[in-house]
Amino acid sequence: MNHKAPLVEFDEERLARAALTYLAEPGDPALGALLGICDPAEILAAIRADLLPGTGPGCGDSPASRAALGRALGRWRSRLPRLPDAEGMAGACHDGIRLICPGDAEWPGALDQLGQARPYALWLRGAADLRLASSRSVSMVGSRAATGYGEHVAGEIAADLAEQGWVMVSGGAYGIDAAAHRGALAAEGITIAVLACGVDYPYPAGHADLFTAIAAQGLVVSEWPPGCHPARMRFLVRNRAIAALACGTVIVEAGERSGALNTARHAADLGRPLMAVPGPVTSAQSAGCHRIIREWAATCVTGAADIIEMLSPMGVPHALAPDGATAPAPPPGSGPPTSVDGAPSGDDLDADSARVLGAVPARGGAGTSTIAVDAGVDLDTVLRCLGRLAGYGFIERGNRGWRLRKH
Amino acid sequence: MNHKAPLVEFDEERLARAALTYLAEPGDPALGALLGICDPAEILAAIRADLLPGTGPGCGDSPASRAALGRALGRWRSRLPRLPDAEGMAGACHDGIRLICPGDAEWPGALDQLGQARPYALWLRGAADLRLASSRSVSMVGSRAATGYGEHVAGEIAADLAEQGWVMVSGGAYGIDAAAHRGALAAEGITIAVLACGVDYPYPAGHADLFTAIAAQGLVVSEWPPGCHPARMRFLVRNRAIAALACGTVIVEAGERSGALNTARHAADLGRPLMAVPGPVTSAQSAGCHRIIREWAATCVTGAADIIEMLSPMGVPHALAPDGATAPAPPPGSGPPTSVDGAPSGDDLDADSARVLGAVPARGGAGTSTIAVDAGVDLDTVLRCLGRLAGYGFIERGNRGWRLRKH
Repeated sequence: MNHKAPLVEFDEERLARAALTYLAEPGDPALGALLGICDPAEILAAIRADLLPGTGPGCGDSPASRAALGRALGRWRSRLPRLPDAEGMAGACHDGIRLICPGDAEWPGALDQLGQARPYALWLRGAADLRLASSRSVSMVGSRAATGYGEHVAGEIAADLAEQGWVMVSGGAYGIDAAAHRGALAAEGITIAVLACGVDYPYPAGHADLFTAIAAQGLVVSEWPPGCHPARMRFLVRNRAIAALACGTVIVEAGERSGALNTARHAADLGRPLMAVPGPVTSAQSAGCHRIIREWAATCVTGAADIIEMLSPMGVPHALAPDGATAPAPPPGSGPPTSVDGAPSGDDLDADSARVLGAVPARGGAGTSTIAVDAGVDLDTVLRCLGRLAGYGFIERGNRGWRLRKH
Repeated sequence: MNHKAPLVEFDEERLARAALTYLAEPGDPALGALLGICDPAEILAAIRADLLPGTGPGCGDSPASRAALGRALGRWRSRLPRLPDAEGMAGACHDGIRLICPGDAEWPGALDQLGQARPYALWLRGAADLRLASSRSVSMVGSRAATGYGEHVAGEIAADLAEQGWVMVSGGAYGIDAAAHRGALAAEGITIAVLACGVDYPYPAGHADLFTAIAAQGLVVSEWPPGCHPARMRFLVRNRAIAALACGTVIVEAGERSGALNTARHAADLGRPLMAVPGPVTSAQSAGCHRIIREWAATCVTGAADIIEMLSPMGVPHALAPDGATAPAPPPGSGPPTSVDGAPSGDDLDADSARVLGAVPARGGAGTSTIAVDAGVDLDTVLRCLGRLAGYGFIERGNRGWRLRKH
């Protein structure tokens, strides 16, 4: 599956999306809004021409938003001198590096849940198929300054998950991230490193060999183009992709101000199951984990079995493969089976989950307790079912509560 | 406050209740049912006369229950030869040992929540006032085979709680229990050891000095009479009293089959806040704690501050002292302030707790999620408020859900 993207595949949209990864930071709200109403190629042409793109409804109509768009245009144009030409961008696809865009077969539908913050495109380096790998994946993140306990536990859990066919997603950093990747590799599992720099940029430098090993057995992924260096803000932006790619997120050691808690928040915002591994209360590195457990933001998990139980959808996972294919895993966000009218079907769910799904409104939103009452199930059950239904992509959490997810 | 009970205080009822602690095991359902309809003295007379007591409604009416009562009578009569005479029972009150009965000023109203399983009487040894001490108390229990980590954490938390005026209740066993008692003593706090044997019976033998120290600064408490030896079943029966005496229960280290989880279940059944301290997931001694946290039966706590936050009633604790007195602490189960019609008053509660209290029905019962909807608060809030309202004695959990507690 190690497919180099040949030059011919860079059609106009692909070329424009590649260019946008050079010109704009991922998650730029102005570009996200524009992409909702304009073609990537139109936007790129407007940037080159120094014209404000996006005069359609909902974007750039107010003076304030046109002013913001003007500033964004200035930012993007300032990087034009560094933008490679078409040949250069296609040429970045060397040594197993390739570009995937929304709409590609390998694009993980789970990322679309990010809405306007969806990556413009993804640069990949490695052997695995991203959509397939992420469809049965757990992200595990934690402190760079991990303790021996944390690294041991992260490695053990990652290996146990890999042995049961789960893919480990992490951020490639020192500490817990590295232990998670290495645990998966040791068990000959697939692991995905989502970087805050180019997929060919060895950061941290001490992990160059680790990234090579990950690419050989899994994937190195980035929203930034090859050659791009990391920056402080990029790690925070990158965290949303880690949370969005995986079926659920596990925090192993996080101090009170750990960046891992930022990933945790993204997972919770996306309605994906959030889990945390406890540790000694005497360890500051576990304080963040204990806090999110105490506040019931995260479920306490102690091993791979707990995690798999949280993430395994109700009923028979195989019955829920996308498009009726025999995919080996439940595809989070890649679209559950739909009935004729396009609404999620509960046919393959267990009784409790089906009842809970039936109590989630299609529009607006409903609170957890309202859903529990309507479904006639207790609190523990509704929380477990909502987590699974959300992780599976049946439902999502909006401003007004839980609602069915549109597909 | 070290009051020896003089002989003259052993009136007929007191003498009868003392005798029942010799003749029947605590928590005997037949005796609990009888005490609901007969005077203790009547029951004692019936036992002596070998007559079935309790021919009133609700007790002993069916052939099956009369047969059960007959068997119970046989059990109680079999111990008559060992029953001291009146002088002997009063004579058991030596060296600071005393007897308290329901209705006494020192009787903790919190125990009445046990219903028919309420202790017949309590033997005390020590300097403190049980009602006052238990009114601001935390029970902390855990493994006898504790790790160094567990003992360290239990001791630290107990000392921190004691420094803030909280009383430590535990079971006097090796391991976590001893660390909890010792932590409180070290901080010059009051601690209560609830034993499964007589208050003068040094079990475990290695704790004879510890019990002497506890009696000097706090209380040794038992439902069994002086001289009584411990037995396996007695520990389980004793556990309900530990849970019922304290405002909340904290588990520090419990293996999957630890007796501490039995105490935890009693606390949960009583609607008292249940907390657990996490530990390394690699430690079997923390597995029980992690399980009850994971199943959301217990709140994850990491120190005294978390525990106090869970147990402190809403609003100003001092405003809630019984009978308008300036008691130093919220009196769980000893009766919250009542309005003119005898219903709990929410005047001193914070807004969320008052809303939740307003949504709890006086009769029947309502589920947690129903209450959340009716009160218009979210899940976390309703759970926190219900725990506090229950711990404070405003409400209780019956077969059909939460309801106002009758006073």
